[in-house]
Amino acid sequence: MRVMLVDDDPARRAAIEASLRSLEHEVVGAITSAADLSAAVRRHQPDVILIDVDSPSRDTLESLGQVTRDRPRPIVLFAHTGAPDTIKKALQAGVTSYVVDGLNASRLKPILDVAIARFEEFQALRNELEETKSKLADRRDIEKAKGLLMKRRNLDENSAYELLRRMAMDRNLKLGEAARALIAAAELL
Amino acid sequence: MRVMLVDDDPARRAAIEASLRSLEHEVVGAITSAADLSAAVRRHQPDVILIDVDSPSRDTLESLGQVTRDRPRPIVLFAHTGAPDTIKKALQAGVTSYVVDGLNASRLKPILDVAIARFEEFQALRNELEETKSKLADRRDIEKAKGLLMKRRNLDENSAYELLRRMAMDRNLKLGEAARALIAAAELL
Repeated sequence: MRVMLVDDDPARRAAIEASLRSLEHEVVGAITSAADLSAAVRRHQPDVILIDVDSPSRDTLESLGQVTRDRPRPIVLFAHTGAPDTIKKALQAGVTSYVVDGLNASRLKPILDVAIARFEEFQALRNELEETKSKLADRRDIEKAKGLLMKRRNLDENSAYELLRRMAMDRNLKLGEAARALIAAAELL
Repeated sequence: MRVMLVDDDPARRAAIEASLRSLEHEVVGAITSAADLSAAVRRHQPDVILIDVDSPSRDTLESLGQVTRDRPRPIVLFAHTGAPDTIKKALQAGVTSYVVDGLNASRLKPILDVAIARFEEFQALRNELEETKSKLADRRDIEKAKGLLMKRRNLDENSAYELLRRMAMDRNLKLGEAARALIAAAELL
């Protein structure tokens, strides 16, 4: 794994880097401040981000949120404090594991393993949701496009469907995309 | 919160119970073995389950899976070992937080807070997925039922939809339920 390490304490950062290397992870772009996070993530494209802070600031959480919107990945945040509200905001910003006072070399491996497994589980659920939403949107749009064709061209349902299907094939579109193109065009015409 | 505690070490269990009480949690049904878990959970209906084991056995994970299928709730598992495969199976069985060698009184509060926030986030995603799936199934079934009515009663689409909608109103069903009732009946007739 390519792990990006963010830690403002040089001695601790060196110790964590050594443990990560002994676990055969590659440490990329060890940085001292989460302010540089977005740029560093874009440059190094890490698989996992590991952050050690006293308490995550609003700026840190915003950077994490940005990084997660660009591409979700497992993020482990070690902090010394954890008010319930801060924890909630951190999870919403994409933090996979929020660990209070738990950063020591011997526990690093299971913490990373848990974060990666947890991230994959969450991601699978998110992907399933996205697919289901997109199927639902396709159905809605296909029905709407069919209705438009039935009304404007005075067709029955089967003929309208057939026409839409042919339009999709001819233009090399998926049926849902063809339906959306037709709806957009109908709004202009 | 009503917390169920599973720990086979009496001294440790007493210490954790004391910490939980000092955090103003109610400890319900402190048990010594995960073998009794399903029955104890049914009896006490805890909000959170906290388990401390050396390593979760297959039986423990099966009990947790059963309990989660009955009603999901935050489960924190403390263990002394965590092979990646065991971690994965534990998360699949419904464990919210898998913590290796991390059970001590001072860290209990943030660990519980993280588990509860994490559980709520996951549950919200799962609920959204269930709702989206059910909307998609409704759409499919309504279209199928409409198609059946159009074919068998020789109706146009609007009349078929209107007939289905009236059937739903008369029988006090949602449109999707009415569609499923009609499809089931059509298979018999």
